[in-house]
Amino acid sequence: MKMKLIDEYRPLIEKRLDGLLPKSGYSDCADAMRYSLLSGGKRIRPILLLEFYKLCGGEGLSALDFAAVVEMIHTYSLIHDDLPCMDNDDMRRGRPSCHKAFGEDTALLAGDALLTLAFSVAAGTKGIDADRLTRAIKILSDKAGICGMIGGQVMDLKFEKTGAAPDELKEMYLKKTGCLLETAAMCGCVLAGADETVVAAASEYAKCVGLAFQIIDDILDCTADEKVFGKPVGSDEKNGKITYVTVFGLDNSKKLAAELTDKAVKILEEFDGNTETLKEFTRYLLNRNY
Amino acid sequence: MKMKLIDEYRPLIEKRLDGLLPKSGYSDCADAMRYSLLSGGKRIRPILLLEFYKLCGGEGLSALDFAAVVEMIHTYSLIHDDLPCMDNDDMRRGRPSCHKAFGEDTALLAGDALLTLAFSVAAGTKGIDADRLTRAIKILSDKAGICGMIGGQVMDLKFEKTGAAPDELKEMYLKKTGCLLETAAMCGCVLAGADETVVAAASEYAKCVGLAFQIIDDILDCTADEKVFGKPVGSDEKNGKITYVTVFGLDNSKKLAAELTDKAVKILEEFDGNTETLKEFTRYLLNRNY
Repeated sequence: MKMKLIDEYRPLIEKRLDGLLPKSGYSDCADAMRYSLLSGGKRIRPILLLEFYKLCGGEGLSALDFAAVVEMIHTYSLIHDDLPCMDNDDMRRGRPSCHKAFGEDTALLAGDALLTLAFSVAAGTKGIDADRLTRAIKILSDKAGICGMIGGQVMDLKFEKTGAAPDELKEMYLKKTGCLLETAAMCGCVLAGADETVVAAASEYAKCVGLAFQIIDDILDCTADEKVFGKPVGSDEKNGKITYVTVFGLDNSKKLAAELTDKAVKILEEFDGNTETLKEFTRYLLNRNY
Repeated sequence: MKMKLIDEYRPLIEKRLDGLLPKSGYSDCADAMRYSLLSGGKRIRPILLLEFYKLCGGEGLSALDFAAVVEMIHTYSLIHDDLPCMDNDDMRRGRPSCHKAFGEDTALLAGDALLTLAFSVAAGTKGIDADRLTRAIKILSDKAGICGMIGGQVMDLKFEKTGAAPDELKEMYLKKTGCLLETAAMCGCVLAGADETVVAAASEYAKCVGLAFQIIDDILDCTADEKVFGKPVGSDEKNGKITYVTVFGLDNSKKLAAELTDKAVKILEEFDGNTETLKEFTRYLLNRNY
């Protein structure tokens, strides 16, 4: 599926990510960081950040580095999630996962190094004043930490053993997937100097998108074309995983995802300024097939 | 061995670390963070930061949170280093290492969460202006990252397979141990508003201390009293590890550590203000028996 916003932003983001990484050949670990960060994700999080930055009056591409930061944190979390002691996934985005390609020790350090590099880039962002930067770094680290994304991962580990009630599943999705999308949307606003009300609306929007995004992942896991999806279809069912589809059924899950997307689009209407592109992007996320 | 500076600062640091951690029982991962962070280290890094902060005219304990940050990063690195895919150490500071007590998955996430929490605390430090904070966060993340501490870990992994020349061993020690001590000393100065010359002197001082510190670790590994040292003595030799002692011999290593300590003390003389306590602390580090 083509999407103008993605086509427009992706080359810029990829080029910046490449420029922020240590040079190829610096060490195995640097190569592993490069391998995972430049493996062709959709770059949804940096795009969200840049769009909210623009929406809140941010000028030009001063927020590009901070957008790259969120993608680094997303990638580190994937590398660590794939490790044998976690999900033990051999494949990621259609090719060997980081530890399969570089070994467990190097993959562990590559994840650590991406997380650390993210904060170096964030703190070194040019053209945005330090007050806004520290405010954004605080949001980023809180949402990525033990009460946010990592907290979601902790719940996931626990639920594999104990099972989860529908509400717990929702909370896990909001943390595991929602928190980093929230970071992107909120930091875009903060870096542009938006006030708390606006930042809170961006957070609400991203919570809806995050939950919808994860429900759609559950749906795609049992309906997608494997070649387009980039990972084996039906793996959730095979692994006895609790998902929105297993809890609420396929049709209800589709309905829920659509409702959340509508809600997200509605929240965008609270913003001053043109939100047409963001609305289109939000609907695209609902209708994606990978 | 007793040391006034440590006796004075340690209770303050421990109390603050306790306050910054998520509450006990929040999750397994939070308990694992608490278990490792509050397991009674010497707190050398936070003490260095606070002393350099004071030396450069910083007032009161505004830098206490940032001091805690450096200790969080030190602890995360120990948790990840101990993992089976890395050094595979079952014991740390005289009790089971984090993954032995909580499982590999939880230990991995506890390390990630401490690293992430460190940046949240750093960005949220009260009473220090945002320009100084971003400058300090940049130093911290660069020195802890792929070109610093993690880079030293990468070299360590490589040298286990290939061996190391004396110069390479020195570079690895400077990165693996030196960089975080440098962070502490440099950030203390930066947070107090010191200029670049002063920050550079603090960096030089910490490089000497870091290298001496690691050489002394090598010496203690073959000379210490196991009960005081808190880990098995002779493990380097048993594991065929290259250390300063295996490369330069015990006597030369002792001489080198003493020379580096003298150099560090001499650098302190470049600072305005009373450096007597720091000098005493530096000599204490040379003469420690654990």
